[in-house]
Amino acid sequence: MSYQAERLSREKVFRDPVHNYIYIQHRLILDLINTKEFQRLRRIKQLGTASLVFHGAEHTRFTHSLGVYEITRRICDNFQRNYPTQTPGDGLWDDHERLVALCAALLHDIGHGPYSHTFEHIFQTDHEAITVAILTSPTTEVNQVLRQVSPEFPAQVASVIQKTYPNPQVVQMISSQIDADRMDYLLRDAYHTGTKYGTFDLTRILRVMRPYKDGICFEISGMHAVEDYIVSRFQMYQQIYFHPVSRSMEVILSHLLKRAKEDYAKPGNQNEAGAPYLLFPFFNHEFDLDDYLLLDDGTLTTYFAHWRRSNDPILADLAHRFLDRKPLKSVKFNEHTKDKIPELRQLIEKAGFNATYYTDTNNSYDLPYDAYDPKMKNPLTQIELMQSDGQLIELSTVSALVSAITGKFSGDQRFFFPKEMLSSKESNVELFDPVYKAFQAYLHNDYII
Amino acid sequence: MSYQAERLSREKVFRDPVHNYIYIQHRLILDLINTKEFQRLRRIKQLGTASLVFHGAEHTRFTHSLGVYEITRRICDNFQRNYPTQTPGDGLWDDHERLVALCAALLHDIGHGPYSHTFEHIFQTDHEAITVAILTSPTTEVNQVLRQVSPEFPAQVASVIQKTYPNPQVVQMISSQIDADRMDYLLRDAYHTGTKYGTFDLTRILRVMRPYKDGICFEISGMHAVEDYIVSRFQMYQQIYFHPVSRSMEVILSHLLKRAKEDYAKPGNQNEAGAPYLLFPFFNHEFDLDDYLLLDDGTLTTYFAHWRRSNDPILADLAHRFLDRKPLKSVKFNEHTKDKIPELRQLIEKAGFNATYYTDTNNSYDLPYDAYDPKMKNPLTQIELMQSDGQLIELSTVSALVSAITGKFSGDQRFFFPKEMLSSKESNVELFDPVYKAFQAYLHNDYII
Amino acid sequence: MSYQAERLSREKVFRDPVHNYIYIQHRLILDLINTKEFQRLRRIKQLGTASLVFHGAEHTRFTHSLGVYEITRRICDNFQRNYPTQTPGDGLWDDHERLVALCAALLHDIGHGPYSHTFEHIFQTDHEAITVAILTSPTTEVNQVLRQVSPEFPAQVASVIQKTYPNPQVVQMISSQIDADRMDYLLRDAYHTGTKYGTFDLTRILRVMRPYKDGICFEISGMHAVEDYIVSRFQMYQQIYFHPVSRSMEVILSHLLKRAKEDYAKPGNQNEAGAPYLLFPFFNHEFDLDDYLLLDDGTLTTYFAHWRRSNDPILADLAHRFLDRKPLKSVKFNEHTKDKIPELRQLIEKAGFNATYYTDTNNSYDLPYDAYDPKMKNPLTQIELMQSDGQLIELSTVSALVSAITGKFSGDQRFFFPKEMLSSKESNVELFDPVYKAFQAYLHNDYII
Amino acid sequence: MSYQAERLSREKVFRDPVHNYIYIQHRLILDLINTKEFQRLRRIKQLGTASLVFHGAEHTRFTHSLGVYEITRRICDNFQRNYPTQTPGDGLWDDHERLVALCAALLHDIGHGPYSHTFEHIFQTDHEAITVAILTSPTTEVNQVLRQVSPEFPAQVASVIQKTYPNPQVVQMISSQIDADRMDYLLRDAYHTGTKYGTFDLTRILRVMRPYKDGICFEISGMHAVEDYIVSRFQMYQQIYFHPVSRSMEVILSHLLKRAKEDYAKPGNQNEAGAPYLLFPFFNHEFDLDDYLLLDDGTLTTYFAHWRRSNDPILADLAHRFLDRKPLKSVKFNEHTKDKIPELRQLIEKAGFNATYYTDTNNSYDLPYDAYDPKMKNPLTQIELMQSDGQLIELSTVSALVSAITGKFSGDQRFFFPKEMLSSKESNVELFDPVYKAFQAYLHNDYII
Repeated sequence: MSYQAERLSREKVFRDPVHNYIYIQHRLILDLINTKEFQRLRRIKQLGTASLVFHGAEHTRFTHSLGVYEITRRICDNFQRNYPTQTPGDGLWDDHERLVALCAALLHDIGHGPYSHTFEHIFQTDHEAITVAILTSPTTEVNQVLRQVSPEFPAQVASVIQKTYPNPQVVQMISSQIDADRMDYLLRDAYHTGTKYGTFDLTRILRVMRPYKDGICFEISGMHAVEDYIVSRFQMYQQIYFHPVSRSMEVILSHLLKRAKEDYAKPGNQNEAGAPYLLFPFFNHEFDLDDYLLLDDGTLTTYFAHWRRSNDPILADLAHRFLDRKPLKSVKFNEHTKDKIPELRQLIEKAGFNATYYTDTNNSYDLPYDAYDPKMKNPLTQIELMQSDGQLIELSTVSALVSAITGKFSGDQRFFFPKEMLSSKESNVELFDPVYKAFQAYLHNDYII
Repeated sequence: MSYQAERLSREKVFRDPVHNYIYIQHRLILDLINTKEFQRLRRIKQLGTASLVFHGAEHTRFTHSLGVYEITRRICDNFQRNYPTQTPGDGLWDDHERLVALCAALLHDIGHGPYSHTFEHIFQTDHEAITVAILTSPTTEVNQVLRQVSPEFPAQVASVIQKTYPNPQVVQMISSQIDADRMDYLLRDAYHTGTKYGTFDLTRILRVMRPYKDGICFEISGMHAVEDYIVSRFQMYQQIYFHPVSRSMEVILSHLLKRAKEDYAKPGNQNEAGAPYLLFPFFNHEFDLDDYLLLDDGTLTTYFAHWRRSNDPILADLAHRFLDRKPLKSVKFNEHTKDKIPELRQLIEKAGFNATYYTDTNNSYDLPYDAYDPKMKNPLTQIELMQSDGQLIELSTVSALVSAITGKFSGDQRFFFPKEMLSSKESNVELFDPVYKAFQAYLHNDYII
Repeated sequence: MSYQAERLSREKVFRDPVHNYIYIQHRLILDLINTKEFQRLRRIKQLGTASLVFHGAEHTRFTHSLGVYEITRRICDNFQRNYPTQTPGDGLWDDHERLVALCAALLHDIGHGPYSHTFEHIFQTDHEAITVAILTSPTTEVNQVLRQVSPEFPAQVASVIQKTYPNPQVVQMISSQIDADRMDYLLRDAYHTGTKYGTFDLTRILRVMRPYKDGICFEISGMHAVEDYIVSRFQMYQQIYFHPVSRSMEVILSHLLKRAKEDYAKPGNQNEAGAPYLLFPFFNHEFDLDDYLLLDDGTLTTYFAHWRRSNDPILADLAHRFLDRKPLKSVKFNEHTKDKIPELRQLIEKAGFNATYYTDTNNSYDLPYDAYDPKMKNPLTQIELMQSDGQLIELSTVSALVSAITGKFSGDQRFFFPKEMLSSKESNVELFDPVYKAFQAYLHNDYII
Repeated sequence: MSYQAERLSREKVFRDPVHNYIYIQHRLILDLINTKEFQRLRRIKQLGTASLVFHGAEHTRFTHSLGVYEITRRICDNFQRNYPTQTPGDGLWDDHERLVALCAALLHDIGHGPYSHTFEHIFQTDHEAITVAILTSPTTEVNQVLRQVSPEFPAQVASVIQKTYPNPQVVQMISSQIDADRMDYLLRDAYHTGTKYGTFDLTRILRVMRPYKDGICFEISGMHAVEDYIVSRFQMYQQIYFHPVSRSMEVILSHLLKRAKEDYAKPGNQNEAGAPYLLFPFFNHEFDLDDYLLLDDGTLTTYFAHWRRSNDPILADLAHRFLDRKPLKSVKFNEHTKDKIPELRQLIEKAGFNATYYTDTNNSYDLPYDAYDPKMKNPLTQIELMQSDGQLIELSTVSALVSAITGKFSGDQRFFFPKEMLSSKESNVELFDPVYKAFQAYLHNDYII
């Protein structure tokens, strides 16, 4: 029997708190899970710094990747049962696409490194490019497994993730407004944070999802379930992903990595005990895939532990602030009050902090939030409902709720600064009291005024 | 206001998936959570290698410690509301004990290091002794916070954990057959593994729990809830904590650390790039508290990543097996078949494996399983029910279910060996086929025969 | 000790699937639950005909009333713990109001009869007036219990339900945009229907709820929890309460009761076996409280069972359709297509149905849906958020989601007709085929065209 | 297409709180659900008087029957996917059996009347015989639907319920130690009561369930899931089904019906207003199927409402006690204290109660509790586990927990009496104080002494 068709004699299951069980039916999938590149995802937390705010959210990209696979598997099952293709081009589901879809689902995040968002920013890495490299480079175990299906298979799986695969149904399972990726992370993050906002009716959405010529749409009878998903997603971003303390810890992490890059670029420093030698290739942007695959969350925090003892006080302090969770404070600002920030930075310098490392601004725009916006150029952003006569209609035209949040900005802009600036008179450092007081006069009701 | 009595002006809450919210009402507790020793628990997984079997179980000792605190807080609230002491010695609850109980609950696990069970075995450390050291050593942040209550307070909290504190009610809240520690970990491990066995009715147990002169007992009306807890605990041990694959990964970890200790004891090896210099103090058993507190799960796995590239093939292979999750296989044996193990080890050596590093036996006895056994010497092991006339009666005398599992051994003994030994004829390594065949003839129905 | 202050020596609990436990702490509350008027609520389903669509939703007003009590109790506990009044008129919580609040919460639905919405329409009863009568009439057990507190107490409790009680905090606990009544029914109906739309974070809402001078408001930090509640409520109306099949069964019930009223008004008919003698007082609108309190869901269905055997074919058929769940079909119409309804009714008459009894129109406006609309005259409809400087701000001005659904009509208008009209050619009744065909030509995509 | 093979063009789903969705795939099943006999189950509560103790448990046999159908459907799906028969007699699953299994599952309770346990006892009815009659009598709608499959089909379905159907796999799906019936009611009763005891891992049990020559067995890898089910069942009986207050309400119901039977047997009484004319056929045991099918819970409570006004004070009082939930009190007794009961009854008579109607004894033996007992004669009671070599082994031989509760009596014997007997001195009825005191001297710690 050919490898791709090889089904496990007895399907294997993994206990999963979100989907109850994850069903593995192909040897190929089991082999992929057992690669070292995939096992490495066990050591990379899904939510990064958000776990420092929502303490239950310590789950990893490994767990999430299995979940995305499982949802994709259920979509395929449903399509195969209810919408099997009869003649080529009829817009229905061709189950020969199942394997490429399952592999893409399982591997879509395999290029992620530790604290991706921040790491990529500082070291100019690109997890999507690395994902493609892991799939297509002959040195990886993942590639060796995929190649057993056919020589072209690794590139096919990669093209699904790159959205260039010819069958739009397969692409949209993995990447669209309602895809297996988003559905899994919303449910999973909600489960582990313990919030209720992210819950929506997955079973019902899977039931009303159906293939059509240009991809995937939803039966109109399921409009409310889809609407509920969009609202849940909106709420999760507001409540979890944009949380100011989580963003503050990202600011610290970012400044810490930047400082380390500067410090260890200096000749001589690279030989000291505790030097982050697994990071060196990244300081010069001369890393290869092997270098990248050695990194995980623990590698970074292990170096941070070393840096606690560094002679550079800023490096040591930032490492301490990150490991011991000492977030910066923040306030909101807007276009009118933006101009006050230089004055605030000056006061912070007066209080003894290097403003380059101890202040920052960011807004939730910067985060990868995908507000639903059907008018965007990207053809994937439309959610189409199929009416009983077969015509499609875009979701926001029939849902008042979705229309309300469509394409709207819903984040905020924040200025981050050391908590010490909020000290009150009773503090021991009387010296800085006037500075603190001057600083505090700029703030009211969580805003710069 | 004295520090110990200082309540937060507004109670603070932490979102928790198991208890919904965790309520922080004292500045003292908040300050303890913010110490570096406590924050470090975020980097130590609660279940160690079991997370390699139950992928959702990636939660840490940080999360669990907050949960133990919260359950203790609820017990105190209940005792204070329903059983406040009137006269000294009346066996009711004196709420002045609340603070010492809460601190002991929060800090009971603070001495844990990475993969404690195995680490302690190899490096002769003792997490309970280290817990006491962290509480009482003047260099720790935890001690500095506790000392603000009174100079004796750190030692008092330590004595609760050591079970020498004079008030048995406080001791039993933290350490007894039904204590806050066990109740939290059962519920939390069940939640994150996604199994249902560990769930029991916490609210009801808290309701029927009450103080008496010699500690804590339960109203007889709650007998079934207590019974259900005992059965749940039994099932969690059978299903989760004794899982053969988890134990197999512990075997690998143990052999890996042992090998590293041997390798790096050799002079010269300590200077190579990637040498585990944070572990050196442990190789010689010359570590201090600071050395210990720098370690976490990530430190170990970072060194394992280094060791993948080691020149010692056994060290490199074991590191690979641990990081990439390649468990040994295992079979059960008993007193009658124990004698076959040397023969099996010989076959394994013939197949090219160093039996010292690639085989092992263990039984679930070795694990810290606390079967309920009222006849044990330890006076804490009795669960007493209070009848309506005030008399106490021991649980197993009235519960058929509990009686059934009281003091019974319920684990198994297993022999671990490389998966390769189960290879079938179709394997590429024809050379070893007769050896494999000979080996397999010893096994039947998951047993050595 | 005075009756009102009398606490049970040991609080009593009721197991509840939604709130886990319901805590009874006053003898007064226990006595009220044990009255015959309150026990009668066990025989009146909460959701009426909706249970014919969502089969799990068979819970009663008894269960819901306990839930409203429990939420109110928790609000009082929170207010007393965090916002106890210091000086009269300071806008904080005076716990002397607790008892009147708890009683009003428990009893707010006590005047409901079977299938209230429809029953009231046909028989011109008014459950709110009857609630007040039950509270204040000296013949009821409820009144006898309440009077033990003080002679004025029954009227005070009634005035809370009538919204004339002087303390707006107490009134708003029971009747406002976010009151204990709505919060319980949304959670409970969601639980029993098995839908997920109605779930919101009750614990968090209770945490951010606080008293102020003019009633109850919410801390701004809880804005998203409040927003989520409003969205959940919106979704429950769309999905559950406005369900077309449920409305169709109400149409049948309404016509059945109307027909019975007409039939049994005829002299002579009242003596036949199976005559609904418990309903006679309502046919003439000459009922007293005792007559009303004998009715429950079972009384009506028992009469319907009798009527199955009636000589009046329309009465017998409608009874059959209700008991055996044979809903009418329905389509939507709008202002433009409204005019076609007389033509449709003519076709239905041609097919042999009496259009008076077998067709109807209704729209979800007719249902007691409370869209959130802060601009309505009623001062209770505002949800106010308290900012950190103490100023209030109305919810829809800061929430895009709430603003989107504020005051908007979100229901539909439907025309109901016998399912037979949709028969296809293959039906046995070829005679009517042309009529059916003509009828069906008016319908497209669930609309009249 | 033949009727039995007719699949709905689009499967239909019912929202279910326990199973999430119930999937209807055959027109036959939908037609059966729409019969009047099946719809009648909406008006018969699953738990009878237990809903007077666990207020959330107001669900009906309709809901439960759908659940049993759904579990059976999932078993068939699993069997068909994993164990399809290859050659006749190979002990695997023949999917031609699916339809008879589904119908038997759906209809297994269709013969139940209101408060079956008590009703049958008083009126000598037999719900199993009536189930068979409903299936096989040509007058019922159920029979008319079933007959469309084939003339023999109704009798075949009946024979499954009677356990005489030749294929033991089909019989055991519906009636065995782990059948769809028990699994549904445990989960459903747990859900609606809000207790946690009844929850077990249905998905896992279905996964390890498999057909074999003599019926259904379980893979040994699922031993703990099966064990957990047995323990859950044990606990549900202890906690819910044997609850003393629920049994007390059954005592009242039983005496009430007995009294009514006596009263209305007297000529003349049958003509009074409010006479229970739907019950007359049962008083004389001269009922037919139509008479039986008119009864439901509401019929009985409607008559009870009439009887409140009866001239017979005992009938009126018992009706009041049942409708207004005034349970008798009870104490346990054993073989040694049994002899005291006549003395207690005498005291109760002295206090003015007719002991025939106001006292009773019962024990939980009387209830239809199926303790797991493999040694019973009935061949269905064995739970067999299949080992990896294909050999079967009986559950209690490998499970300490199951062995502990196997075949053990776990109920209690109780004596029921009026609550008034526990009145204390402060009662208003000083007259009876000495009698009460004498009575109470017999009781200690919930036992007769």
